Amino acid sequence: MNPSEGRFITGGENIYPSYEGDYYFTFAEPPDRYILESGMPLGPITVNYQTYGTLSPSGDNAVYLAHALTGGSLAGKHPKPEKESGWWEPLVGPGKAFDTDRYFVICSNVLGSCYGTTGPSSIDLSRGKNFAMNFPVVTIGDMVRVQKKLLDHLGVRELVCAAGGSMGGMQALQWAVYYPDMVRSVIAVACSAVFSPIGIAFNQAERKAIMNDPSWRQGDYYGTSFPYNGLSLARMIGTITYRSNESFEQRFGRSFQNAEMCNQFAFHEQFAVESYLNYQGEKVTYRFDPNSYLYLSKAMDLHDLGRGFTSFQAALKRVRCPVFLMGINTDILFYPQEVRGLAVEMRRCGIDALYEELKSPHGHDSFLIEFEEMEKYIKYCLSEGEKQ
Amino acid sequence: MNPSEGRFITGGENIYPSYEGDYYFTFAEPPDRYILESGMPLGPITVNYQTYGTLSPSGDNAVYLAHALTGGSLAGKHPKPEKESGWWEPLVGPGKAFDTDRYFVICSNVLGSCYGTTGPSSIDLSRGKNFAMNFPVVTIGDMVRVQKKLLDHLGVRELVCAAGGSMGGMQALQWAVYYPDMVRSVIAVACSAVFSPIGIAFNQAERKAIMNDPSWRQGDYYGTSFPYNGLSLARMIGTITYRSNESFEQRFGRSFQNAEMCNQFAFHEQFAVESYLNYQGEKVTYRFDPNSYLYLSKAMDLHDLGRGFTSFQAALKRVRCPVFLMGINTDILFYPQEVRGLAVEMRRCGIDALYEELKSPHGHDSFLIEFEEMEKYIKYCLSEGEKQ
Repeated sequence: MNPSEGRFITGGENIYPSYEGDYYFTFAEPPDRYILESGMPLGPITVNYQTYGTLSPSGDNAVYLAHALTGGSLAGKHPKPEKESGWWEPLVGPGKAFDTDRYFVICSNVLGSCYGTTGPSSIDLSRGKNFAMNFPVVTIGDMVRVQKKLLDHLGVRELVCAAGGSMGGMQALQWAVYYPDMVRSVIAVACSAVFSPIGIAFNQAERKAIMNDPSWRQGDYYGTSFPYNGLSLARMIGTITYRSNESFEQRFGRSFQNAEMCNQFAFHEQFAVESYLNYQGEKVTYRFDPNSYLYLSKAMDLHDLGRGFTSFQAALKRVRCPVFLMGINTDILFYPQEVRGLAVEMRRCGIDALYEELKSPHGHDSFLIEFEEMEKYIKYCLSEGEKQ
Repeated sequence: MNPSEGRFITGGENIYPSYEGDYYFTFAEPPDRYILESGMPLGPITVNYQTYGTLSPSGDNAVYLAHALTGGSLAGKHPKPEKESGWWEPLVGPGKAFDTDRYFVICSNVLGSCYGTTGPSSIDLSRGKNFAMNFPVVTIGDMVRVQKKLLDHLGVRELVCAAGGSMGGMQALQWAVYYPDMVRSVIAVACSAVFSPIGIAFNQAERKAIMNDPSWRQGDYYGTSFPYNGLSLARMIGTITYRSNESFEQRFGRSFQNAEMCNQFAFHEQFAVESYLNYQGEKVTYRFDPNSYLYLSKAMDLHDLGRGFTSFQAALKRVRCPVFLMGINTDILFYPQEVRGLAVEMRRCGIDALYEELKSPHGHDSFLIEFEEMEKYIKYCLSEGEKQ
């Protein structure tokens, strides 16, 4: 478990944050290679991860937290106090929902991402340059199988819980299907068992935004250019689907940015909601690799718990732990009725599945915002899970 | 009312259809100019329009149909039988909902569009070249005031009904606020009195898609280039918001395009829904001007019935005719609860407002698809309107 340097070379500078407290695990080193769900080989594979708490001698107190599209392994508090917050920081720590006095909490950056885990910006050793679009398509299943390798390496024998929201929730569900003997409960928020056609449609538009940008250069922009406009627009479209009209009404309404100085009839004058989306679009360009955005959104599109089994129901029937689902009433990317429908289908397949609906104006992203409600639900799920 | 040539020069070829049955009306000719809501002058202004049926001697049997974002003046049947269909053709004609044996039906291409009415692709006489981004920002109010000029010119004294869906519905509502003495009923489908922040957000993303395209050249692409990728992407984003997940589930589900031949793990392999959106994106590039797309979406963003009056309620209190509103249960651009809320607000302001909800899986675009239901509702509205 030697911390090592970040693996990404983008024009000679590593633009993505690499935490000093990060750990790295590498497997499938030459001459070995790892066979992906597609049948394509990949190796070596490095995984960036963080842990919180202490693993029990019997390796049975672990919790795996799976991050969403542009997230990373920093789920909890950064080891250096002045550094940025983790994406579920209010939920991870001593006495918190994922109580690190009791649990050994692990979060790793997913395969295909750009925060230290192998992805399209990594160096393809066979060519001596970044993979770019030569990177193989990866799936949610591949991400989870890589996570299993990491957990084996760490000596984890059982997961008290696999949990996450959005793409993270997809992984949590996939864990229960792939490794039923290892997972004792699943908490999956604002996600589905099979990605929806409208979700694919939005992802396609986001990918087009990147690929339309001449600076994308068919993916070969490393060290040369950066598809700033394309990635910004992709994130803007994404951000609309992560929020809701209720959220925009509450925060911005129809007010203009610089309301006092503005001429509302000038073409380039912006509403406050436009300025907010521009800001979100710009921000992501400082921290995320456009090719990773393409590959991870493709992995979401391909998400289908039933793939590789004789049927969707056959996949669900493998699950042996309780599954705690949560929909969000204003979510326009994963409609709450779809999440609820999955709970119904799971119960039909013999799973002890529970559905809860989070009421929030903030849309899909509520799982990264409504920590008080999330904490209550997670504590309840973990205590119910332990009764099994 | 001389039919004349289309007014658009795009690289020497007129790529937008110009119907032989079209009529043109021009006003604000030099030295006159027309003052827009912004205070900016514009002139001459040409309006492309079509009519169906015969105006009564007293000029009181007219119906105005207002088109949506990329629509044109062809609402009913084209005079040449082999030509394309009008956007509300099943609703316009002898014995149909808008019965041309009784009514004189008028539809004109809106100000800022590209089908024969003055817009950014028109020639700016003062510069001898296309307006491009020198075109002034226009509003829904400007569109309606131009339509009023046309109706005055045609000898129309009263409108039996002003009707439309989406941006067309915005115009119909604006008619009742601006010209309460002239309008005897309004039918407004899948629209609002004030455009929503999430609607502005989607429109902004669509405009960015066009403006990110290097071929857009700050709008000065006429005769030089065409922002094909940008306009296609804008239309793709738009099309997602015009449809619904239900519609995509029914039509495409998660099936792959070329399902038999495809390798689902190949990055460029497409789901059927992606192929559909690509097709919609491509189609619009053969028939619509990208700068018009920018200006008309901006006009939607600025839509606010209250602007120019002391309050929103003061604007509504001007309305003297019954208003028939229709929301669509799967609409994700104009939520049905928002349309319903407008009916409530209108009744509070003393308007005889009715709300009806169309049940359809097809989302926002249902007003261009569910003709059987639309016909029933329109017939009911017109007969109720005549009782007033």
